[in-house]
Amino acid sequence: MQDCHKSQKIALCMVGLPARGKTYISRKLHRYLNWLGYNCKVFNIGNYRREICGTECDKSFFDSKNEQATKARNECAQMALNDLINYLNSDGEIAIFDGTNTTKERRNMVQCSLLQQCQNVQTLWIESICDDADVIQNNIRLTKLNNPDYVSMNPEDATKDFLGRIKMYEEVYQKIDLDENLSFIKLINIGEDIQIHKVKGYLLSKIISYLMNLHIYPRPIYLTRHGGSTFNQENRVGGDCDLSQQGIQYSEQLGKFLLDEFPTQEQRNQIHCLTSTMKRATHTAEIVCNILKINYLQLKTLDEINVGICDGLTYTQIAIQFPEDFAERKVNKLTYRYPRGESYLDLISRIEPIIYEIERSREPVLVIGHQAILRCLYAYFHRNEISEVPQLEIPIHAIIKLTPAAYYCEEIRIKIDPETGERKQIEEDLQIARINMLTKKKSYILL
Amino acid sequence: MQDCHKSQKIALCMVGLPARGKTYISRKLHRYLNWLGYNCKVFNIGNYRREICGTECDKSFFDSKNEQATKARNECAQMALNDLINYLNSDGEIAIFDGTNTTKERRNMVQCSLLQQCQNVQTLWIESICDDADVIQNNIRLTKLNNPDYVSMNPEDATKDFLGRIKMYEEVYQKIDLDENLSFIKLINIGEDIQIHKVKGYLLSKIISYLMNLHIYPRPIYLTRHGGSTFNQENRVGGDCDLSQQGIQYSEQLGKFLLDEFPTQEQRNQIHCLTSTMKRATHTAEIVCNILKINYLQLKTLDEINVGICDGLTYTQIAIQFPEDFAERKVNKLTYRYPRGESYLDLISRIEPIIYEIERSREPVLVIGHQAILRCLYAYFHRNEISEVPQLEIPIHAIIKLTPAAYYCEEIRIKIDPETGERKQIEEDLQIARINMLTKKKSYILL
Repeated sequence: MQDCHKSQKIALCMVGLPARGKTYISRKLHRYLNWLGYNCKVFNIGNYRREICGTECDKSFFDSKNEQATKARNECAQMALNDLINYLNSDGEIAIFDGTNTTKERRNMVQCSLLQQCQNVQTLWIESICDDADVIQNNIRLTKLNNPDYVSMNPEDATKDFLGRIKMYEEVYQKIDLDENLSFIKLINIGEDIQIHKVKGYLLSKIISYLMNLHIYPRPIYLTRHGGSTFNQENRVGGDCDLSQQGIQYSEQLGKFLLDEFPTQEQRNQIHCLTSTMKRATHTAEIVCNILKINYLQLKTLDEINVGICDGLTYTQIAIQFPEDFAERKVNKLTYRYPRGESYLDLISRIEPIIYEIERSREPVLVIGHQAILRCLYAYFHRNEISEVPQLEIPIHAIIKLTPAAYYCEEIRIKIDPETGERKQIEEDLQIARINMLTKKKSYILL
Repeated sequence: MQDCHKSQKIALCMVGLPARGKTYISRKLHRYLNWLGYNCKVFNIGNYRREICGTECDKSFFDSKNEQATKARNECAQMALNDLINYLNSDGEIAIFDGTNTTKERRNMVQCSLLQQCQNVQTLWIESICDDADVIQNNIRLTKLNNPDYVSMNPEDATKDFLGRIKMYEEVYQKIDLDENLSFIKLINIGEDIQIHKVKGYLLSKIISYLMNLHIYPRPIYLTRHGGSTFNQENRVGGDCDLSQQGIQYSEQLGKFLLDEFPTQEQRNQIHCLTSTMKRATHTAEIVCNILKINYLQLKTLDEINVGICDGLTYTQIAIQFPEDFAERKVNKLTYRYPRGESYLDLISRIEPIIYEIERSREPVLVIGHQAILRCLYAYFHRNEISEVPQLEIPIHAIIKLTPAAYYCEEIRIKIDPETGERKQIEEDLQIARINMLTKKKSYILL
C-alpha cells in the first residue's frame, strides 16, 4: 500500500529533552521508511552544531542565558531546517527534524516555515517524555558517552556535563500543548503512555502504529535459511520440495547450536520461532523445535518469493525460455516482478507485518526462512539501501545473529557444518557488515 | 499473523456515557475480530436489562438515587459479566463488555472478577469521550430513537427522555484514572485525541490500530469484479488473461454508471479507486478511470486468490488431475489451500490492510477486484459468518454499493448489461441481504 500518497510530503519533528531517545526514534523511523521505499532523510541539529561550532562545547553553551551561544544554536537549527525544506522541495518525501525543539516559540517558527516554504506538507510532532531516572542514566551511558561531543572526556565527567546540559534545557522546556494546534504523538516512558492528537491519513497512521511497537529492550534475532533442499542442489527456483539429507543434518546441528545459546528450558521457552508454510522450512523448524522442545508458528507471509511462471525452472532454463524476462531481471532485480509472481518490492510490502512482530517482541526471535525473504528482513535491521536488497548474501547452512542496540545492530554470522556440526564465525562477512555499519553510522553523524 | 497467540483470552470493556458510540465501536470490533477468525462475542448490558426489566424504563430508572433500580441494573450487569466469563472459559477467545461502566467501583468489580475467574485473560478498557453536542444529538437521532426502549415513543419525547438519562449518568461518571491501574485507550471526540496507557501484545496493538482508523462519516463503497475475461468464458481458474469484448463493454458501462452517481468532476475527484495488478482488473480500471478522469491505484494485495498448481485449469481438469485436492476443497472451501497457492483464510489475512484503508477513507471508495477477493471484503462489511465467505455471491457485470451506517450496512446491487447498458437492481439478492441484516441485527439485540 505504500505507493498510495506519494505526492504528499511529510515532516516528522522531534521534541524532548536530551537523552529521551529522540535520535533513536529518528533513526528507527528513517530505517523503516527507507526500507518501505520512501525517500527519507534525518536532519540532526546536533550534527550541524558540531560541524559549525565544533565539539568543544561544554554545558554552558546550552544555557539559554548565554546569548551568544543561543544565537549560534538558533542559527544551526535554522540551517538544518533550511536543508530539510530544500530536501522536501526536491525529491525528498519524508524528512525527520531531529532536535530538542523544546520551546513553543521554536516549534511555531518551524511549523510556519514548513507550511510557508513547502508545498503540500503534513507535519507530525513526536514528543518523547521520560521521567524515569534509570532509563535516562542508561540512555546517557549507552549513547551519549560515545557521542562526538564527549570522545575526549572521561565517562564520569561526561555524564556530569551531560546532566548539566539537560538541566539547561529543563529550564526552558515547554511540553507540546493543545493550544499550539499541532498534530502530535507523545511517547511517555517508553510507550507506557501514548497520546495522539489530530493525526490523520494513511502514512501518518502507519508511522503511529510503528512507533507504538518500538521498545529498547535488547534481545537477539536469529535468521537462518531452511536446510538445503533438493531444488537447491539442482539450482532450480521456486517449488515446494523437501529437505535433502544434508538439510536434515543442518537442522539437527542448528537445534544443537540453539541449545548452547539457550542452556535452560526456561530460556528456550521464551524463543519466538517463526517459519513459512513451505515444506523445506517447516521441516527444518520441526526438527529444531523438537530438539528445543518449543512450538513454532507457520506463516504464509514468510513463504519464499513467488516466481510465478518460472516455478521449478533452473536459471539456464529461464534464460532460454523467457529471454526477455531474464534480461529485464538482470537490469533491476529490485523491481522486476516474475510474470504472475512477485518482485523484491512486493516482498517487502508482504513481510512488513513480520517487522512489527519482531520489533514488538521482547523475547528472542528465530526466523527459519528463505533467501529472498531473509534478504528483505536483514536489510531492515542492517539499514541496507533498498537497491542492495536483492544482492545481499544470506548463505545456506549458516545462522545470522542480530542484536539491535541503541544506534546500531550487532551482527555475528556462524557457518555450521551439517555433517560435523563444526561452527565457524564468518569473519569476512562480519567485517563487511561492520564496515557497512560504520559507514552508515558515519554518514548519520556527519549527515 | 492472527493465529499467533490464541491461548490468550481477551476482554474488551467499554466505558462512557450513553450516546458516545460504545455500541458502535463494540459492533465494529466484533465484526473485525470475527472476520479475522477469532471467536468473539458482544455482551451488551442494555440488552440484559431490557430482557429482565422490560423496555418500559423511563429515565428515573437510571437515577443512582433510585435504590431499587440501581440494584436491578447492577444485577443485569452482573449477569452479563457472568455470561462473558463463562464464554471466555469455554471456547470464546475475545469478549466485548458493552455497557457504560462509568464508576471506578464498577470497573474495579469487573476487573477483579475477570482476573479471578478467567485463566490467562488480558483486559483492555475502551473509553469513548465526546463533548461535542452536535455529535451526541446526531448519535441519539441515528441510533437511540430506533432503540427498543423507545419504539413506542415519539421522537421528541424519546430524545428528551434520553438526554435526561444521560444526565443521570453524568452525575456519577468518573473517567478512567491512572490510579485505577488499568490498560486503556481513550477515544476523544471521534479520534481527534487518543490516549493509550499500558497496552502491550500483538492482538491488543492490532485492536488499537483498528480503533485509530474508525470514523463515522458516511461514504459509499462500490465493489465490482473486473469485466468478463476470456478465462471466465472458458470456465478456467487463475491465469492473467485480458478482458473479453463483453468485458470491455461492461467497463465502459460501469464508467457511465459512476458518471451518474457522481455528476460533477469535483465529486469524481474524491473517488478512491483501487484495483489489482492483474490485466483484466487493471484494464477495467483503465477504461473506467479514463471516463471519470481520475487516477487509480494498483495493489498486488488485491490480486485474485493464487490457485497454485491449478493455475489455468478448468474445474473439470482439476477434478481429473488432482482428485484428492478437488475432494478436499469441496469439504472445506474456507481452509482449503491450493497446493502452492492460497486458501480463503490466507486471503483474509492478505487483504486486511485494504480494510484499514477503506475504513480510514472519508471519501467514496471503488474497488475493481476479483471474485474471491471481493467475497472476503464483502463479508467484512456484511457481517457474514467466516464459514460463509467462499459461497458468497459476487455476480459478474454487477456493482455492489455499500453504505455503512451506525449499526448496519445498506446495500444496493445493480446488474449492468454490458451491451445495452441497462441497469437493473437485483431485488432477490437485496432481499436476502436485508433479511440477513435484520437477522443479525436481531441476534445482536437479543444476544
